[in-house]
Amino acid sequence: MLHQLHDLSDSASHATIASLIAAREAGHMLPAGLYTRPDAFEADLDIIFHRHWICVGLEADVPEAGDVYAVDIGRSSIVIVRDEDETVRAFHNVCSHRGARLVPAGRAIVGKLVCPYHQWAYELTGELFNAPHMGQEFNRGLHHLKPVAIRSIGGILYACLSDDPPEDIEELDRVVTPRLADYDLVNTRIAYESDIVESGNWKLVIENNRECYHCEANHPELCVSFHASDFGFDPEELSPSERDEAAALADLYRDQTEAWEAAGLASAAVEHTVGVATNFRTQRLIIAGSGESQTPDSLAACALPLGTAKKGTGDTHLWGINSWSHMMADHAVVMTLMPLSADRTLVRTKWLVHKDAVEGVDYDLENLTSVWLATNKQDADLVRIAQEGVQSAGFRPGPYSRFTEKQLDDFATWYVERMSAHGYGR
Amino acid sequence: MLHQLHDLSDSASHATIASLIAAREAGHMLPAGLYTRPDAFEADLDIIFHRHWICVGLEADVPEAGDVYAVDIGRSSIVIVRDEDETVRAFHNVCSHRGARLVPAGRAIVGKLVCPYHQWAYELTGELFNAPHMGQEFNRGLHHLKPVAIRSIGGILYACLSDDPPEDIEELDRVVTPRLADYDLVNTRIAYESDIVESGNWKLVIENNRECYHCEANHPELCVSFHASDFGFDPEELSPSERDEAAALADLYRDQTEAWEAAGLASAAVEHTVGVATNFRTQRLIIAGSGESQTPDSLAACALPLGTAKKGTGDTHLWGINSWSHMMADHAVVMTLMPLSADRTLVRTKWLVHKDAVEGVDYDLENLTSVWLATNKQDADLVRIAQEGVQSAGFRPGPYSRFTEKQLDDFATWYVERMSAHGYGR
Amino acid sequence: MLHQLHDLSDSASHATIASLIAAREAGHMLPAGLYTRPDAFEADLDIIFHRHWICVGLEADVPEAGDVYAVDIGRSSIVIVRDEDETVRAFHNVCSHRGARLVPAGRAIVGKLVCPYHQWAYELTGELFNAPHMGQEFNRGLHHLKPVAIRSIGGILYACLSDDPPEDIEELDRVVTPRLADYDLVNTRIAYESDIVESGNWKLVIENNRECYHCEANHPELCVSFHASDFGFDPEELSPSERDEAAALADLYRDQTEAWEAAGLASAAVEHTVGVATNFRTQRLIIAGSGESQTPDSLAACALPLGTAKKGTGDTHLWGINSWSHMMADHAVVMTLMPLSADRTLVRTKWLVHKDAVEGVDYDLENLTSVWLATNKQDADLVRIAQEGVQSAGFRPGPYSRFTEKQLDDFATWYVERMSAHGYGR
Repeated sequence: MLHQLHDLSDSASHATIASLIAAREAGHMLPAGLYTRPDAFEADLDIIFHRHWICVGLEADVPEAGDVYAVDIGRSSIVIVRDEDETVRAFHNVCSHRGARLVPAGRAIVGKLVCPYHQWAYELTGELFNAPHMGQEFNRGLHHLKPVAIRSIGGILYACLSDDPPEDIEELDRVVTPRLADYDLVNTRIAYESDIVESGNWKLVIENNRECYHCEANHPELCVSFHASDFGFDPEELSPSERDEAAALADLYRDQTEAWEAAGLASAAVEHTVGVATNFRTQRLIIAGSGESQTPDSLAACALPLGTAKKGTGDTHLWGINSWSHMMADHAVVMTLMPLSADRTLVRTKWLVHKDAVEGVDYDLENLTSVWLATNKQDADLVRIAQEGVQSAGFRPGPYSRFTEKQLDDFATWYVERMSAHGYGR
Repeated sequence: MLHQLHDLSDSASHATIASLIAAREAGHMLPAGLYTRPDAFEADLDIIFHRHWICVGLEADVPEAGDVYAVDIGRSSIVIVRDEDETVRAFHNVCSHRGARLVPAGRAIVGKLVCPYHQWAYELTGELFNAPHMGQEFNRGLHHLKPVAIRSIGGILYACLSDDPPEDIEELDRVVTPRLADYDLVNTRIAYESDIVESGNWKLVIENNRECYHCEANHPELCVSFHASDFGFDPEELSPSERDEAAALADLYRDQTEAWEAAGLASAAVEHTVGVATNFRTQRLIIAGSGESQTPDSLAACALPLGTAKKGTGDTHLWGINSWSHMMADHAVVMTLMPLSADRTLVRTKWLVHKDAVEGVDYDLENLTSVWLATNKQDADLVRIAQEGVQSAGFRPGPYSRFTEKQLDDFATWYVERMSAHGYGR
Repeated sequence: MLHQLHDLSDSASHATIASLIAAREAGHMLPAGLYTRPDAFEADLDIIFHRHWICVGLEADVPEAGDVYAVDIGRSSIVIVRDEDETVRAFHNVCSHRGARLVPAGRAIVGKLVCPYHQWAYELTGELFNAPHMGQEFNRGLHHLKPVAIRSIGGILYACLSDDPPEDIEELDRVVTPRLADYDLVNTRIAYESDIVESGNWKLVIENNRECYHCEANHPELCVSFHASDFGFDPEELSPSERDEAAALADLYRDQTEAWEAAGLASAAVEHTVGVATNFRTQRLIIAGSGESQTPDSLAACALPLGTAKKGTGDTHLWGINSWSHMMADHAVVMTLMPLSADRTLVRTKWLVHKDAVEGVDYDLENLTSVWLATNKQDADLVRIAQEGVQSAGFRPGPYSRFTEKQLDDFATWYVERMSAHGYGR
């Protein structure tokens, strides 16, 4: 935590990380040190998590004026508030006086943001309202809370700690906001929230998330409602009957996507995964089985639909730098990750239902949550063995499948691009 | 733990820390890295805790010949003994043979200091008495315990690990020893001891201790017996009635201090806080409420007075580099801190009563200890949120109040002076 | 975990460690930093544990075809298998695809090694049998498991992670294999296994193991069957009666060793402790007391002898880089250490009996294990206080006894030699 000062030891680290970045081979994982070194973790915080648009929560986290939601990003903390004009704002969760954390992680309802240490009080707009003992000549105008850039994309909140946030958040907005409109996420309620700490680097968590190559053997619950082949397969290794199934699914996708698009439902895949600052991918997916929802029986979990979403409109999936989500007609699941150290990552999952849906009446909580609770736990085990492997002397960055791991190759390429763009290049 | 060898990586760290030291602005906190970086923690151990006079305990920790008290200072350990001539001595708690720790942390009674590893035995003067298997030609005289400089100031023990301890311990002695004489701390007993580990850098623990700006909102128990305004206030923000109260207290201080001084009780504030190696501040404070003691009802906790101290003689407070204490007529409270890592600090509190005082007869233990047990717990929470803040990307070193945080400004200035004096200067 | 890339910060570390290595004085411990610095720990992993023959287990860990035993060496992991031809092989426990750990630490029985992540399947010879989704053109021959050099020396397994393992393993084989033949360790069973984590650097664990200077005061159980003077004593400090005892034992050793050698039992001490890559020492020791075994009453613990070993053939002890063991007629005890961090070391102990011995019939488990369980616990306490000492500012590398600590001096010399030979020299 040096903050704007020249640092010789960081220079040495910087050169090492830059050489690791430069050593990455296309089609392969990153060099081991980028998953394991504490200084690479620091660089990831500094470049990826402090200078890019990171998914930090939902409008549903601060549904009403005076609601406050504090989120940690690495060792930093921000506070998201809905002010009296219903505007969602974000600030560094740091008092301008002695730097104390203003609000503990989690949710609260406040009139003003009052520091527990010496009672400096801030308006929900960030202005310093009162600073006792500082004297008459003290210029409160210079000591407001430090603002953090924040954007709601269809009810999902993205923040950037940098004073110069990437401009291509507009592209995310342009593509995704219309696709999320039907789900009206602003008028949802968080029915359940789960935090798990996975024993692996955040990039291994993302790599695990960006393929379904591992699904069939590891995710029996998810595979009821999810076509594992959605994210690729090797056509040549299919049996004749599998080949028929794959062709049938491809036909179904073509027809269904056309039908959805004709009905005004944007559905085709959009990939902004390389050559951009703000990476994302979205597509309307066909739900397998009964086709309604990611539940144990693939039927809708919640009787009350989200917004104006209708049965049979599939699963709008959305990936970002540190998040993945599935919007379905009856509920949505939004997952974000936050790196804790080189080998530990927080994965936070929120299940959203219509704000008027009543537990036990409109939905059964276990039915709503069980598929992703199980899937996250299985993924945590896989991420753990991946981390154990990359820190072993025998590790060499392995080859990605060009059929089912193209998204990982893109992610590694994006990562190298972004680090290079911020000074870790050759 | 390099020990007298040139170290290139330490050179890089050294330059970074020096630049952070140089970047500190007067009137403001230190740059974040000085509270958070592991190498800054190492530098603090090396410079502040190994080359300055650190409060390590009390004569009451080793009341009789043969008593031994082992204390950790960072990763180092010293053993304090009272030898057969009743002299208090200190040694590195390290066997001269294979370096084993001689005595576990805490208290013991011994005839000789015998290493449990290979039975090397040392006199309480540090001489090597026996070293089996080393041969007839082995010169035991070269392998005595390595002595540590130790001084009793009115019964409070200060040690310095350096071979060249700061000479201005004499100034502490000159000012403080007479002020402590009445309390006769040598003839006290430790009625209770509490260790807590605070989740913050030791300098944040000190900063928290050096102001009472936070007291009113955070320390209801302490404020019964403590005038929060003792360490400053902003006169211009007082209401008319508060202004009257402040004037009355100022008058009372002037009159009471005069009266105490006339009665031979040194009372006026003495501040050696900047421009010195061995910082300290002392003053005889007026106890609020019933005026007797820092207890829930501000009445004396112990029926037996300390030494020749009389009721109505207030509270002699004493601050040092790593300690703060309050000597009252009925009991004393001595707090020391020891840094454990960049973000963890041990705070050890000892409550002293007359050595003949009997628990349950002369004092009630809960009544004696409850104010500072509560206060320490509250302070630990404040130190934790301060550490959470300084490690956040949004932290900037904030401004100190010139009315109520002058002591913090002095402490930061002293810290910069001491680090600079030991090679971390520009 | 940089893996073959130039690293400036590692360069600084490298220079520091090299200077510490160069600073070591003959006859004394190593400089403190070599026991305490995280970068010295990394260097030890890299040089000692990745480029030397390390004791990793026993043939008895994989008694049958299809048996698998995964062992961690620092942060690396290897998997030892017995293939269908009964050949013992070892591989890096890392999938060639995404690097996941193939097998959890411990034992399993498998047909093939199948990665749980994406079902890449390997033969027990390491060949890649199946790699789904990789396409027809994918060359499986290039993605076999990375082999690890492994050798069985009389049933004890030594592995080397380097592609260029030291050749003098042949010398260990030449000397030790015949000495272990009688015990037929290949046909033993692990009756009990104990893992403890000692709070000290691995070199302090070895130093503790290489002398019996500390035995008399610390190991009452072991001293029933072990002559503490076996590894030296100072003749001049003996009392007349002790002198007689020592002379008697020396005579006994001379006569017994002659008798054993005459009976074809290699017994004399062989020391390859300095000037070699693969250090070891072996000797047939006389068991004290009843003379049969390291048990509470020094009588055999197991009714069924090992191999063709006979009562009265003493204790063949064997030391290596990271191991120590005792082969007796009725059972054997094999201890290995693995470094976990600069100040934590895993010590794994295995008690071996004849493979047909039945617990409760041929041996009592507590009687078999109690001496070394107690001894290891006592040693862990000693290693802990040694580590506490070396990390203390008062530590100076102390002098070894030339009578009872010569083996430690040799070990430190060997360590300096090996580090110097791998680039940490002057």
